[in-house]
Amino acid sequence: MNQDQQYQECIEASLDCMNACNICYVSSLKEYDLAMLRECIRLNRECADICDLAAQSMQRNSPFLKEICELCILACDACAAECGKHEHDHCKACAEACRKCADTCRQMLVVA
Amino acid sequence: MNQDQQYQECIEASLDCMNACNICYVSSLKEYDLAMLRECIRLNRECADICDLAAQSMQRNSPFLKEICELCILACDACAAECGKHEHDHCKACAEACRKCADTCRQMLVVA
Amino acid sequence: MNQDQQYQECIEASLDCMNACNICYVSSLKEYDLAMLRECIRLNRECADICDLAAQSMQRNSPFLKEICELCILACDACAAECGKHEHDHCKACAEACRKCADTCRQMLVVA
Amino acid sequence: MNQDQQYQECIEASLDCMNACNICYVSSLKEYDLAMLRECIRLNRECADICDLAAQSMQRNSPFLKEICELCILACDACAAECGKHEHDHCKACAEACRKCADTCRQMLVVA
Repeated sequence: MNQDQQYQECIEASLDCMNACNICYVSSLKEYDLAMLRECIRLNRECADICDLAAQSMQRNSPFLKEICELCILACDACAAECGKHEHDHCKACAEACRKCADTCRQMLVVA
Repeated sequence: MNQDQQYQECIEASLDCMNACNICYVSSLKEYDLAMLRECIRLNRECADICDLAAQSMQRNSPFLKEICELCILACDACAAECGKHEHDHCKACAEACRKCADTCRQMLVVA
Repeated sequence: MNQDQQYQECIEASLDCMNACNICYVSSLKEYDLAMLRECIRLNRECADICDLAAQSMQRNSPFLKEICELCILACDACAAECGKHEHDHCKACAEACRKCADTCRQMLVVA
Repeated sequence: MNQDQQYQECIEASLDCMNACNICYVSSLKEYDLAMLRECIRLNRECADICDLAAQSMQRNSPFLKEICELCILACDACAAECGKHEHDHCKACAEACRKCADTCRQMLVVA
């Protein structure tokens, strides 16, 4: 895989993760067991904002890309760990999207 | 008040409102009566994002300023109405910041 | 096409447009005829920010979706008109992505 | 200075820096010596986006605050160095706001 493909894959994984986080966020706010989802809701938003920055930074070839990818890995790992505790479909889908995004960012850092 | 002062006042009101929305959001997520605050939490985030766009659009003199101010008024009015239903200090402070931001945007629209 | 598919298509068109705007923005800043691209660069950024808000608002089913789609149409039309004046490949690609996003938002408004 | 004051000061410095970056960005795009300001324009936008994230992360007490402050210092230092090369008033004002924001973030990291 060349560098352009790597970027493209990482942009897509970040935007997919932002999407999953936003869906998990708004779905969690409607759940009956809301009180158990406080941290999930909070991390969904933080992770969505950081994935958004990561995707746009790659699109614009930001000079701070390495540090933004590291931050994105941190947020995705935390959100995946939290969402992974819950049985809701939106939580499982979000945890998976977070893990994939973190993995793709890690591969970027090796190459970049 | 000249147009520059009007802009400056409206930027400040938008950023104050974003701040109040973010504080109300994170504080609401910790409250005991969380289930009553679902809509408050949701509107806090929407309103914070829109106030952020409004402030930055004024700072950059966006060609879409009129429509963005109208959107900001809509979001602030909705968030003020919802936060106004709750007795928490962060909700009251948020409702007040939203009302002030909406008023300042309305004055902008008269002049702009 | 059902409403979910409509949302999904509109989210994708917004994110594609944000991507094209960011690429056009950073590519324009490197061009020799930079002075002719001032308005293009400026609109790329405004349009990217608004497409970002539109995509995330659809993902979170924002109560202000109608007004945000109208704003997105306005920004995309303006950016498409400006990018359409230039011969650079990134400008042509951006104009096309903007037009597609505006069309998809218009279809959303009919259904929503 | 207690931790709340430290946060408040750092939020204000980040928002002032975002403001100065946005003004410098839109003013630079109008300048006659546009070609010399390419990197300035580019860094203004990156720095504004990162200061925005930093301010909102502090307002929401993000779990990734330390890493976001480190990223903010990096962006502010780079933007201050670039803007410091130019004689325009908006560049000087931006360089000063960037330096102040970086300093305030550094103090946050000592305490946090």
